Amino acid sequence: MLHSKALIKLLGELKKLPGVGEKTAIRLAFHLLKSPANVSALADSLLEVSAKVRFCSICFGITEDDPCPVCSGDRDESLICVVEEPQDMLAIERSHAFQGRYHVLQGALSPLNGVTPAQLKIAELIGRLKQGEVKEVVLATNFSVEGEATTLYLTRLLKPLGIKVTRLAHGIPTGHDIEYVDVTTMQRAMEGRSEL
Amino acid sequence: MLHSKALIKLLGELKKLPGVGEKTAIRLAFHLLKSPANVSALADSLLEVSAKVRFCSICFGITEDDPCPVCSGDRDESLICVVEEPQDMLAIERSHAFQGRYHVLQGALSPLNGVTPAQLKIAELIGRLKQGEVKEVVLATNFSVEGEATTLYLTRLLKPLGIKVTRLAHGIPTGHDIEYVDVTTMQRAMEGRSEL
Repeated sequence: MLHSKALIKLLGELKKLPGVGEKTAIRLAFHLLKSPANVSALADSLLEVSAKVRFCSICFGITEDDPCPVCSGDRDESLICVVEEPQDMLAIERSHAFQGRYHVLQGALSPLNGVTPAQLKIAELIGRLKQGEVKEVVLATNFSVEGEATTLYLTRLLKPLGIKVTRLAHGIPTGHDIEYVDVTTMQRAMEGRSEL
Repeated sequence: MLHSKALIKLLGELKKLPGVGEKTAIRLAFHLLKSPANVSALADSLLEVSAKVRFCSICFGITEDDPCPVCSGDRDESLICVVEEPQDMLAIERSHAFQGRYHVLQGALSPLNGVTPAQLKIAELIGRLKQGEVKEVVLATNFSVEGEATTLYLTRLLKPLGIKVTRLAHGIPTGHDIEYVDVTTMQRAMEGRSEL
């Protein structure tokens, strides 16, 4: 039907991307065909990222230089924020609300999907904590079943080390209508209410 | 914030894709970072498509060989289906409902966006029709303002040539509930009702 093997192969590659099905792949591919300059720019970018971007050997975030600028910079060494994925670190950095360092677990516990503590960068986290400079670990895993399980696991593991373990506040996000807040969030927001 | 120039560049390229904003670009990029094999496969595919895929010099559809297999095959030469984009040709081919040839306009009339008849492959269509073998032109432009305008323009242009000009039926699609059909579609479906 589609008289181009190259195009069929490209559709196959595009469909491996998250949220991209047959129809989106076709839309993306035909869009690219209309702008050949974009095709080669995208291909070059991909190859460049593939060649240059790696994981930081300390925090396991994304970086071009190892250790990454956050790990080698003059950030507060007594504070480590633990996140699931490198993009979570990015979201926290965007907020400018955290001045410490990071540790990327590269996932969350999910025994059903075969993700056990050994698959995550937990041993590496313990290694960093044993150097003795860290006073507080801020757990910033997702507020999902897997993220909460990971937080529970880490809390039990870290507390005996005598380190303060905290968790990002769970509550109602900015701009949300009280009317539409889901039950769990509302329960947590009520539990965590603060005095004014 | 994002400590990788290569990654920032990739995000920029991804955001040029239709329907891809900042958040989707980040999701795609970090997904790709997790599977380096996919990154290079995607980059290679893009370069291959860029090198091999071109427009057919007869119908202006997508092809690796010029003329394309549809134009060089033994399809009915008396029938030409006119579409806006190469992907429309694909959708019609998938239906196996058409045995003739195609002509891709590479767009639709949209004076506000600067798309006039000169930007479309209309002169080339007239050229094909003047060879005298075509008896019917099936207009399969989109049922949008631009598509309908293009159909109107082409009808006025082609009818004086003594060629039968037809349009795909406008009506209620398979599987749709009568309850949710929009007003215009319902009006056209009623106008075009057929005797059983």
